[in-house]
Amino acid sequence: MAVVVTGIPRVPSAVVEAFRQIGVATIHEASGRRGLLASYMRPIYRPVHAAGTAVTCQVAPGDNWMIHVAVEQCRTGDILVVAPTSPCDDGYFGDLLATSLMARGVRGLVIDAGVRDVAALTEAGFPVWSRSICAQGTVKATLCDVNRPVVCAGMLVRPGDLIVADDDGVVVVERTQAESVLEKARQREANETEKRRRFESGELGLDIYDMREQLRQKGLRYVDAHSEE
Amino acid sequence: MAVVVTGIPRVPSAVVEAFRQIGVATIHEASGRRGLLASYMRPIYRPVHAAGTAVTCQVAPGDNWMIHVAVEQCRTGDILVVAPTSPCDDGYFGDLLATSLMARGVRGLVIDAGVRDVAALTEAGFPVWSRSICAQGTVKATLCDVNRPVVCAGMLVRPGDLIVADDDGVVVVERTQAESVLEKARQREANETEKRRRFESGELGLDIYDMREQLRQKGLRYVDAHSEE
Amino acid sequence: MAVVVTGIPRVPSAVVEAFRQIGVATIHEASGRRGLLASYMRPIYRPVHAAGTAVTCQVAPGDNWMIHVAVEQCRTGDILVVAPTSPCDDGYFGDLLATSLMARGVRGLVIDAGVRDVAALTEAGFPVWSRSICAQGTVKATLCDVNRPVVCAGMLVRPGDLIVADDDGVVVVERTQAESVLEKARQREANETEKRRRFESGELGLDIYDMREQLRQKGLRYVDAHSEE
Amino acid sequence: MAVVVTGIPRVPSAVVEAFRQIGVATIHEASGRRGLLASYMRPIYRPVHAAGTAVTCQVAPGDNWMIHVAVEQCRTGDILVVAPTSPCDDGYFGDLLATSLMARGVRGLVIDAGVRDVAALTEAGFPVWSRSICAQGTVKATLCDVNRPVVCAGMLVRPGDLIVADDDGVVVVERTQAESVLEKARQREANETEKRRRFESGELGLDIYDMREQLRQKGLRYVDAHSEE
Amino acid sequence: MAVVVTGIPRVPSAVVEAFRQIGVATIHEASGRRGLLASYMRPIYRPVHAAGTAVTCQVAPGDNWMIHVAVEQCRTGDILVVAPTSPCDDGYFGDLLATSLMARGVRGLVIDAGVRDVAALTEAGFPVWSRSICAQGTVKATLCDVNRPVVCAGMLVRPGDLIVADDDGVVVVERTQAESVLEKARQREANETEKRRRFESGELGLDIYDMREQLRQKGLRYVDAHSEE
Amino acid sequence: MAVVVTGIPRVPSAVVEAFRQIGVATIHEASGRRGLLASYMRPIYRPVHAAGTAVTCQVAPGDNWMIHVAVEQCRTGDILVVAPTSPCDDGYFGDLLATSLMARGVRGLVIDAGVRDVAALTEAGFPVWSRSICAQGTVKATLCDVNRPVVCAGMLVRPGDLIVADDDGVVVVERTQAESVLEKARQREANETEKRRRFESGELGLDIYDMREQLRQKGLRYVDAHSEE
Repeated sequence: MAVVVTGIPRVPSAVVEAFRQIGVATIHEASGRRGLLASYMRPIYRPVHAAGTAVTCQVAPGDNWMIHVAVEQCRTGDILVVAPTSPCDDGYFGDLLATSLMARGVRGLVIDAGVRDVAALTEAGFPVWSRSICAQGTVKATLCDVNRPVVCAGMLVRPGDLIVADDDGVVVVERTQAESVLEKARQREANETEKRRRFESGELGLDIYDMREQLRQKGLRYVDAHSEE
Repeated sequence: MAVVVTGIPRVPSAVVEAFRQIGVATIHEASGRRGLLASYMRPIYRPVHAAGTAVTCQVAPGDNWMIHVAVEQCRTGDILVVAPTSPCDDGYFGDLLATSLMARGVRGLVIDAGVRDVAALTEAGFPVWSRSICAQGTVKATLCDVNRPVVCAGMLVRPGDLIVADDDGVVVVERTQAESVLEKARQREANETEKRRRFESGELGLDIYDMREQLRQKGLRYVDAHSEE
Repeated sequence: MAVVVTGIPRVPSAVVEAFRQIGVATIHEASGRRGLLASYMRPIYRPVHAAGTAVTCQVAPGDNWMIHVAVEQCRTGDILVVAPTSPCDDGYFGDLLATSLMARGVRGLVIDAGVRDVAALTEAGFPVWSRSICAQGTVKATLCDVNRPVVCAGMLVRPGDLIVADDDGVVVVERTQAESVLEKARQREANETEKRRRFESGELGLDIYDMREQLRQKGLRYVDAHSEE
Repeated sequence: MAVVVTGIPRVPSAVVEAFRQIGVATIHEASGRRGLLASYMRPIYRPVHAAGTAVTCQVAPGDNWMIHVAVEQCRTGDILVVAPTSPCDDGYFGDLLATSLMARGVRGLVIDAGVRDVAALTEAGFPVWSRSICAQGTVKATLCDVNRPVVCAGMLVRPGDLIVADDDGVVVVERTQAESVLEKARQREANETEKRRRFESGELGLDIYDMREQLRQKGLRYVDAHSEE
Repeated sequence: MAVVVTGIPRVPSAVVEAFRQIGVATIHEASGRRGLLASYMRPIYRPVHAAGTAVTCQVAPGDNWMIHVAVEQCRTGDILVVAPTSPCDDGYFGDLLATSLMARGVRGLVIDAGVRDVAALTEAGFPVWSRSICAQGTVKATLCDVNRPVVCAGMLVRPGDLIVADDDGVVVVERTQAESVLEKARQREANETEKRRRFESGELGLDIYDMREQLRQKGLRYVDAHSEE
Repeated sequence: MAVVVTGIPRVPSAVVEAFRQIGVATIHEASGRRGLLASYMRPIYRPVHAAGTAVTCQVAPGDNWMIHVAVEQCRTGDILVVAPTSPCDDGYFGDLLATSLMARGVRGLVIDAGVRDVAALTEAGFPVWSRSICAQGTVKATLCDVNRPVVCAGMLVRPGDLIVADDDGVVVVERTQAESVLEKARQREANETEKRRRFESGELGLDIYDMREQLRQKGLRYVDAHSEE
């Protein structure tokens, strides 16, 4: 019953490009604090940033067969998103598969499992966000779906969705929301530039965000260390 | 009932400065093997070393409001120590708060939770020791105490205590013990220099520490691999 | 009843040297996917590669006494393998013990527990693979065996076995299998060079490994995203 | 932007009732091995079995406000499914909320977080599957969605889906698939009864499933322990 | 430098007795949501409830010597609280030590480490809250403090403090606060009885706690499932 | 290259029977504190006790094929010991396999992975010690060895070794050591009966084990709580 879905719609490449300058934390905020994958997903090297469109791939534990199937579905500007059907730390992906993805213009890998050959991947500048680094090999025996929605590291990813990943982690933006999130992210960035200037000059968040009165109303009290004893 | 304690006594800055040359492992030993925070507290970049006086801040899970309150209590030479009331990996702290702390001369952050914008923090050279790296945003809704004793990563930290942190982790020294620990740490370092020389020349710990007789008395036996079979 | 076994047979040094060019993932595959230590064993710095013969050392939790005993059993080309009798993250090993091992020509440490002084170890270029980084000191009170078989990070290691470790983790090869694994690893590497060339040129794993017919027989179907809805 | 969706379609109650006799492992197999929540979701008492229709509720970390909102959306035959926006072990749910749900005919709670008052819940026979048991209280400050799809313990749950849970864990079946899964589950059960009889009589899985030839072809060899040495 | 503090002040026994009817969640709330130990502290059997005064005991990893010292400091109505200096799952405590504590009228054990002989302890009705169940034996080699403040499972416990533990976990109440917390806990219980009656009759938390207007002001919207699509 | 070893030597059944009265903690001590499997191995019900001879079985992640092969190698008095080649929580074993093992007189299962149908297994009184409870199904695709030494939950188990398991966990005793360990375990039990009597009468471990002088020599001091301040 395993299926490979072809011809998936993707976030337009011009929109994807616009996200290449924007950090994961900003996009997550601009999305209404949605879409962040679990924090155990770590990049194999830092600093790093990638933005691309998701090709999704389910795999059985200890079995990387479907990654080979998924590679064919990838094209320039994609990020491959791999999720096992049950938790597994095995090294599903290494040097050769990365070579294959790079030959197709793929921008990175997000895998809720393990990768290997990380020295070679690092040297080649192929970014990977994974749950673990592990040399354990896998078999090729069990079919799963490609380009069907998957839950990866606790978050739903649909094929064609926008994936952005950097030192802070990985965020997914629903395909149809990408443009509106882009706009909000840009506003947020503009806004942060102004705030950063104020913080640099010594202004406090208490004043910039006008918090003092609210804190007082909630009951916050200030007491001197000496009077306290 | 939340309280911010002002005017806390701190370890004198001359004492703090003297700790800037000394590693966490040495200080921990000099303290009688006390004060080490849990080993899951990791620096966001390496190598790194910081020494400062603790401003302590409790926070609710997923809520960084009190960090803004705590910033105002920080001054040059402090390290901000943040502990959630229950375990949480959210990204409580990022670029803007770091900018604010740097503007006040704060030397680093120790947080038993998550941080974000780690690429920017790394580039700015603002050191953070945290439980996780996570872009997940937080709300501003719940009051907690600032500059009251907190348990951070399994260790009690009182406001004004000495915090030293490096690649090995984070250690706290009680304010009133800082000077005596400093003296012991210096003796230890002097002692280690001499020992390092002996180890370099090929002497064994068995002889340097005079262990052979003790091991023999406890019953340690040596057998040859060939006679053994 | 603790015993130190002396005069252990080791993988010949010429064989060990030949492994210095070969990665852990390749060796693990060449061994029939055996011998990999648990993926939580991470190097303290990267990139890194070491190959050597195992000197094995059991330790009690929070007690590094036997490491001093084991150092004397180490010689040029060895890697020290340390396993606690129950899980422990303490910092069993630091700067001085590394100095001692380096003076004896030892090539690295594999420890299913914690290490400290990692800034110094990194600067000295002494490679360590460990479960944690932790400044917590240890006592010297309890005897254990040296150069008896140990389970380290889930894998049996016998004294004299071959240990290879790199960015991907740590693999052990049984002493008597080292030469045959070496041959298979070399074949594998030669084979991979050819495959890498084909992947670079854009060929797919589906074709290189002749998977299409097998996938079809197992029932894999391709459907178009538009016809699907 | 938080939304409560009312009037959700649900699996018909006759279908739900039919699942009350069927175990989670059987349903998971009948679903093509889909739908199982992560194995850390454990029941607070055993033995236990519940089947119902999902009312879904997102919550902020340490904040159970939306559970009160969700209760109103629950009706007889439902199971409440609660997922935090980031991992949290706090005790979101206790005695009083259980009383409220029982008054509405709700059959249980599935929560990827903590519960408290488990002695009272056990005595009342109100089943809960949770990530943890924890007395930590929560606040009421942040809005989230009710009856929107959520990822709970790694699995997508849509409002109105079928939830079945027992000693083995929790499985979700998509609303539109419930009837066809029911049929397959019944076939599977009938089939297992016959197999159980054969196993009881001493027949081996090797013969019942006709595995011997396949194993031989894959290369499995039998050797005698004595000839082996 | 290890010290045993004798003659510690304790919460008066009449106050302790009054807590024997009150659950941990209620006490934690009455304490202003303070004092709860980490949720990994689980009872070895359920249902269970204990209230007593803390005798505190630090131990080295894998070393239970100080528990023997601490036993002598225990008297009727105490609960022994044991915390290792670094994380350890070993079985520090079993049948014989429980026999010794029961002979002294001690009401239970709270240990941030492992216990063994749990079948015997369960049969004897001696309650234990621990981090793990583990048969691994310990040595007797290293001194630590008895009846000095310890951090146990993330919470500061001072000798003589009130400890209450049940199926939900373990809470500590500072000695000087015990009476005022008792009063608040009783008010809370009275209050809950009334609320429980209202919930049973079908009233909603939304109305009992008057939440509707607040939710509306924060922006919560209700939409019908059908109009939504 | 997968092999099934037949005709393995086993601990004599009379010796095994003698262990049916003895607890895991006692056997572990009598073995010189060796042989204990990791503490995450928990029984699916309590109280429970089993003793038998090991049939060992390696499995691939998410693949229970070899368990069917191993069943045929089991006979009355055996305990099946299953270890995956990399960590996996899937439900490898359920109702039907248990029926098959019970038909052969097998006494239990020890599996460093997941089991399912635990309600049925509990009702049938078939004891299992596992890493997790999980309904996730497995495939049948990959060969591994049966009756070769395996590392299970961190401990080496050879076919024919003695396995004893109870509420405290699982211990393995090397086949050739079983008789001598039995004798030591019996002495230990006799010894404990006498000690238990003394503890019951109120004697302290400090006196029974003659620790006071040793503690004094190591430097333990007693100070009164009032003089201390």
